Amino acid sequence: MVAARKLLRRAGRDRAGRFLVEGAQAVREALAYGRVHELFLTDAAAARNPELIDAADRAGARISPVTERAAETLSETVTPQGLVAVCDLLDVPPATALGPAPTLVAVCAGITDPGNAGTIIRVADAAGADAVLLAGDTVDPHNGKAVRASTGSVFHLPLARDRDAAAVLAACRAAGLTLLVADGHGERDLHDPGTAALLAGPVAWIFGGEAHGVPADLAAAADHRVRVPIHGRAESLNLATAAAICLYATVAARR
Amino acid sequence: MVAARKLLRRAGRDRAGRFLVEGAQAVREALAYGRVHELFLTDAAAARNPELIDAADRAGARISPVTERAAETLSETVTPQGLVAVCDLLDVPPATALGPAPTLVAVCAGITDPGNAGTIIRVADAAGADAVLLAGDTVDPHNGKAVRASTGSVFHLPLARDRDAAAVLAACRAAGLTLLVADGHGERDLHDPGTAALLAGPVAWIFGGEAHGVPADLAAAADHRVRVPIHGRAESLNLATAAAICLYATVAARR
Repeated sequence: MVAARKLLRRAGRDRAGRFLVEGAQAVREALAYGRVHELFLTDAAAARNPELIDAADRAGARISPVTERAAETLSETVTPQGLVAVCDLLDVPPATALGPAPTLVAVCAGITDPGNAGTIIRVADAAGADAVLLAGDTVDPHNGKAVRASTGSVFHLPLARDRDAAAVLAACRAAGLTLLVADGHGERDLHDPGTAALLAGPVAWIFGGEAHGVPADLAAAADHRVRVPIHGRAESLNLATAAAICLYATVAARR
Repeated sequence: MVAARKLLRRAGRDRAGRFLVEGAQAVREALAYGRVHELFLTDAAAARNPELIDAADRAGARISPVTERAAETLSETVTPQGLVAVCDLLDVPPATALGPAPTLVAVCAGITDPGNAGTIIRVADAAGADAVLLAGDTVDPHNGKAVRASTGSVFHLPLARDRDAAAVLAACRAAGLTLLVADGHGERDLHDPGTAALLAGPVAWIFGGEAHGVPADLAAAADHRVRVPIHGRAESLNLATAAAICLYATVAARR
């Protein structure tokens, strides 16, 4: 329990190479796609989820009954479900995540809100992306809020983390991807016919921080800066909705 | 202050016909597009925002200096800015919001999370929608969290509220709109060529609740149920990102 509690913080996760996954749905995904070492659960959670205990047992995970109070100390939610798994960290090196011939990749460059990062991972998964790369000062995708916002998608596609954002972009370019920065002031309109032709080819979409967007040096190094057109009086879109629009415009361009 | 504090709750807002707008950006939008009756502000907020005091004065609003502590009792945020305006409610009847010949409308049918409702209003604004209609058991768009998530967009386009969701759909149909329900299990793919032809005409997109989607009777009454295609292993998209994808696919179909 003491060791597990340290996984609530990024430094503890990085040191142990493990993270926490909370709730029945996420634990189910972890057992299906990840590597689970231990499953903490209350009697009530055990009674509600007998199939998860069987699956954890088959996966060779240790099953550890805990009190409600102990389960709460591992939980980051308002209404804990009494079910928390300890899993191996998911990230791999950027080149491994990219694979030999990626066609659609999402890069988070400086995203600090874990809910936004998790939502972008979920949308990238839904759009059929090959990988999500978390570059620069981006939040850890193993953060509890990010895992929850991803609703299991952190387990579905390769993730990589690298503080060196320029190196991440270089890896994308080496993998044959055209680099597109989502930028409200970009020189290209997402809906221009020329952009659709671009999106039909292999691309990496780069999404920046909530306040200041993609750092200027990275934006300048990309091939194109693309804006989602604003037709009303809104000043901008929020990060997760803009990312969803860009990723799905790419899906549409390939039909 | 006592009267203003009652506006923190829906019943109080509906009784008074007024709501609260918090923070410099939102108050600026309220002064530009809404009707402001009173502006509560701390000395520090006044020093930071002299132009807002001038604008409130020109708008005929009462300027009421308050202490930090009093400002906090009107605030719903973790870090209050010391700046809260009392404004007239924004909603109009559905037929008024729709106007004579709408071409793109968003309908929220049973959305309970104010952040989702506000984000959909923001995206609808950005997509150039004619109106947002809040139908059935949908959260009040004058809720503080909804106002904040909209980042000013509640002031930018007509809003209507009506508990009778069937009547809202009937009003949309009478205005010449084709009714499309966003539904993960819909019979039409958003990216099918036939759907693009549909989206080029006047449409109302209907977005349902977070847990169960659009109520079955409303979904059956619509003209088409449209799914955002899922290409990876994600089970679904979250409501606000799905709405963004649908609304911007409509914008793209009109280029």
